[in-house]
Amino acid sequence: MANITRKDVEQLDQGDTLASFRDEFHLPEGVIYLNGNSLGAMPKKAVERARRVVEVEWAEGLIGSMNTAGWYKLPQTLGQKIAPLVGAKPNEVVLTDSTGIVQYKALAAALQMQPDRRVIVMEGSNFPTDNYMAQGLVAHLDRGYTIRFAEADEILDAIDEDVAAICITHVHYKTGNILDMAAITKRAQSVGAAAVWDLCHSLGAMPVDLNACNVDFAVGCTYKYLNAGPGAPALLFAAERHHGKYFQPLTGWYSHAEPFNFERDYRPAPDARQMLSGTQPTVSLSLAEIGIDIALRADMNAIRQKSKQLTGLFIELVEERCGDHGVSLVSPRDPERRGSQISFDHDDGYPIIRAMHDRGVICDYREPANMRFGFAPLYIRYVDVWDAVEQLRDILDSGSWNEEQYRRRAAVT
Amino acid sequence: MANITRKDVEQLDQGDTLASFRDEFHLPEGVIYLNGNSLGAMPKKAVERARRVVEVEWAEGLIGSMNTAGWYKLPQTLGQKIAPLVGAKPNEVVLTDSTGIVQYKALAAALQMQPDRRVIVMEGSNFPTDNYMAQGLVAHLDRGYTIRFAEADEILDAIDEDVAAICITHVHYKTGNILDMAAITKRAQSVGAAAVWDLCHSLGAMPVDLNACNVDFAVGCTYKYLNAGPGAPALLFAAERHHGKYFQPLTGWYSHAEPFNFERDYRPAPDARQMLSGTQPTVSLSLAEIGIDIALRADMNAIRQKSKQLTGLFIELVEERCGDHGVSLVSPRDPERRGSQISFDHDDGYPIIRAMHDRGVICDYREPANMRFGFAPLYIRYVDVWDAVEQLRDILDSGSWNEEQYRRRAAVT
Repeated sequence: MANITRKDVEQLDQGDTLASFRDEFHLPEGVIYLNGNSLGAMPKKAVERARRVVEVEWAEGLIGSMNTAGWYKLPQTLGQKIAPLVGAKPNEVVLTDSTGIVQYKALAAALQMQPDRRVIVMEGSNFPTDNYMAQGLVAHLDRGYTIRFAEADEILDAIDEDVAAICITHVHYKTGNILDMAAITKRAQSVGAAAVWDLCHSLGAMPVDLNACNVDFAVGCTYKYLNAGPGAPALLFAAERHHGKYFQPLTGWYSHAEPFNFERDYRPAPDARQMLSGTQPTVSLSLAEIGIDIALRADMNAIRQKSKQLTGLFIELVEERCGDHGVSLVSPRDPERRGSQISFDHDDGYPIIRAMHDRGVICDYREPANMRFGFAPLYIRYVDVWDAVEQLRDILDSGSWNEEQYRRRAAVT
Repeated sequence: MANITRKDVEQLDQGDTLASFRDEFHLPEGVIYLNGNSLGAMPKKAVERARRVVEVEWAEGLIGSMNTAGWYKLPQTLGQKIAPLVGAKPNEVVLTDSTGIVQYKALAAALQMQPDRRVIVMEGSNFPTDNYMAQGLVAHLDRGYTIRFAEADEILDAIDEDVAAICITHVHYKTGNILDMAAITKRAQSVGAAAVWDLCHSLGAMPVDLNACNVDFAVGCTYKYLNAGPGAPALLFAAERHHGKYFQPLTGWYSHAEPFNFERDYRPAPDARQMLSGTQPTVSLSLAEIGIDIALRADMNAIRQKSKQLTGLFIELVEERCGDHGVSLVSPRDPERRGSQISFDHDDGYPIIRAMHDRGVICDYREPANMRFGFAPLYIRYVDVWDAVEQLRDILDSGSWNEEQYRRRAAVT
C-alpha cells in the first residue's frame, strides 16, 4: 500500500474524534513531540493550577490548606479519579511517592501472600528500575529470594509453584510489546502466586482493567500519557480483598489507622490509606489533577483506536519511505500487540536521533541501536507522523547526521 | 521583669539584623503566622520559579529539561546547597522523596553497620512517623528487632552494647526540647551503635553540625524553616565514610552506578547517589531551591540568636499577661535547650487555639492540652509576638472561646 500522500493524512486528522484535545496542551512552536511516553506535554490549564497551589493555597492558605484545599487527602482524591482508567474501585488506588517507591511497596506487600516461597518472576529486559527495586528489596530481606528473569513469551512457562509473585510491566518500554495481563495473571494465580503489574507505558494510552484481570497490586506512571507533570507521583493499586491483610512496610503516619492521634505505636489503616507513607509533594501532586481530568473526559477506547492508527501509519510510512536505509522494526507489527510507541533499530540510531532533535522532532534513543518514537493520541496528529517521517527520510537520504558531533552517549531519559 | 511595652518590642525589631528578610516572604493580610514549624511561608520568588518550571521548563523544554534545566541532578545540586546548613560535605547530602521515606532509607542503611545487634533506641514521644517507619521496617525485616523507647534524659542510659542504632529527633516536635546531638552520638558510637538523627525541627532554625558530631545518617524536613514549599522533598545525609558500604534498599535507577546503561542488574552507585531511588517530583523539588537560597544568605547564628529572643519574649509575655489563666509552660525555660517553637498546656487548649485562628493568629494544638507556637526568625517580628500574646490574653480574659463551637478534634497538622 504505497502512495499515501500528506493530503490523505490530513483527512485522517479531519476525521479524528479526539482532535479537539490537542488544543488543551501547550506544544512548543516548530516541535513535533514524539516523547510523550517519557514526559507528557503540559496541559494549558496546568498554568493556572500551578498559580493557585503556590500563590493562593500555599501563600494565603498556609498550613490551613491541608484541610481547606484538600492537600491532606490528595493521594486518595486523585486515586479515586484515576481508578476508572484502570478498572479499579475508587478505594483501591492512591497517587503517591514515585513509581519506583510504590513498586517496592507493592512487591513487598505481594510477597507476604506466599511467605514460604522464594521466587519472583520478572522480565529481564524491562525498564530496569523495576528489577533494581526488586533486587534491593530481596537483598534487604536477605531470605534467599531469587529473581527468575524471563522474556515475553517465556513468562508463562517461568511461573511455577515456587513463585511467590510475578512483577511484570504491561507494555515494554523499548519495544512497546503488550503482555497479556489476563493470561499471565491467571497463570500466576493458578499456582498461587501474586500478580503485580507495572502500568508505566499503558496508563492513559489504552484501557486497562485490573479487576477484570483479578490483579493483586499494580503501579503506574502518571507523567507519561496522563500528562501529570514532571516526576508527578505514581499510581498504586491494591485490590480491596487485600486491604488490612498485606502491608507495605514504609509505614509513615499517613498509613496509620488514626494519624491525628499521634500514638506512639503503629497501627495500620484498614484500607487503601495503608499504601501511603508521609506528607506528599503537594505542588507536584496538585498539578497532576489537570492531566488526569483531561484523560477522564476522553474516551479511552478512542485513545486506543487512534494510538493503533498513529503507530500503524508511522510503521507504514517509515518502511515505505526509509526502508532502504537499514531501519528495522523492533515493535510488534500486529497493532493489538503493541502499545503507543514504536521502535526501529538502526546502526547509526544515536546520531540520527540527534539530527531529528535538531530538526525539532523530539524522540529518543536507547542502546544499542534503538530509535524510539512515542505517540500520545491526545495531542499528536496524523500529519505530525507524516512530517516526522519526512524529516527522518530526509536525514537518511542525505546522510546529514554528523558523526563527530553526535557520537556521544545519550543522556536523554 | 514586668512592664514591657509594645514600644520596647518595636525597638527590638528596629535592631533586628534579619528584619529585611521578612519582605522576601508573602504573608497574608491580617495574619500572624506562628506555624512556620509546620509549613514555612511562601518566598515571593517562588511565584516566578513555579512559573518557570511549569511554563518554560515543562511546557517548552519538555523531556529535554532533564538535562537542560538540570532536573535530573536536582537532588544532588540542592543537596550540595543545603550541605553547609548542616555541617555536611557537598557530596553527603541529597534532597529527595519525603521525610518518612528517607528515614526508612537512613535507618535501613544504619542497621547494616551492626548486623548482629537487634535493638533500636528511639524517643517514644517523638513525632510518631519516625516510630511508625522504624516499626514498619523491623516488621518487614522480621529478624527480632526491638525498639527501645526512652525519653530525653533517659536516652543516654538506654544505649548499651545491644543497640544497633539510635534514631533520634534533634528538636522535639511538641516541647521544642533540644537533645544533645554530640553527647548522644558519642555515647552511641562508644558502644558501636550507629547514630541516625532527624533534623525536622532544627533544619533552618539553628546551626547544625553533623560532621562535628560524627553523625552517621540524618534526615530533615525542608518545608518548615527552609520554606521549601508544601511537602517539599526531604534532606538525606550519609556520612562519606559510609558511601559504598551501607546501602539503602529502595534501589531505583537513580541509585545505580550507571543509570543510563539500562543494565538488567543493580549495581550501587559508589557515592551519595545510592541514597536516591527514582524520578523526583520535579516541580516541588525545583521550588525548594528558593527557600533554601534565602536561608543560605542569612547567618544561621543570627537566626538562632533571634529565635532564642523571640521564644524568650513569648514566654515572658505569656507568663506576665496570661499567667493567671491556667497556662503552663511545657518547653524548656533555658533558651539553650529549646528550639524555635514554644508549647504551653491549657485544659481548654483546643478551643483557645481555634479562637486564636479566628483572630488571625495561626498556631496549632496537639492532644491532650498542648498549644504550640512556632517562631520562624526570617519573617516573624517581635511585634508579632507581642500582638499574638495580646490576642491570647484577650481571649483568656474574656473567656470568649465558645465551647460548643470549638470542641472538636483538631485536624490541623
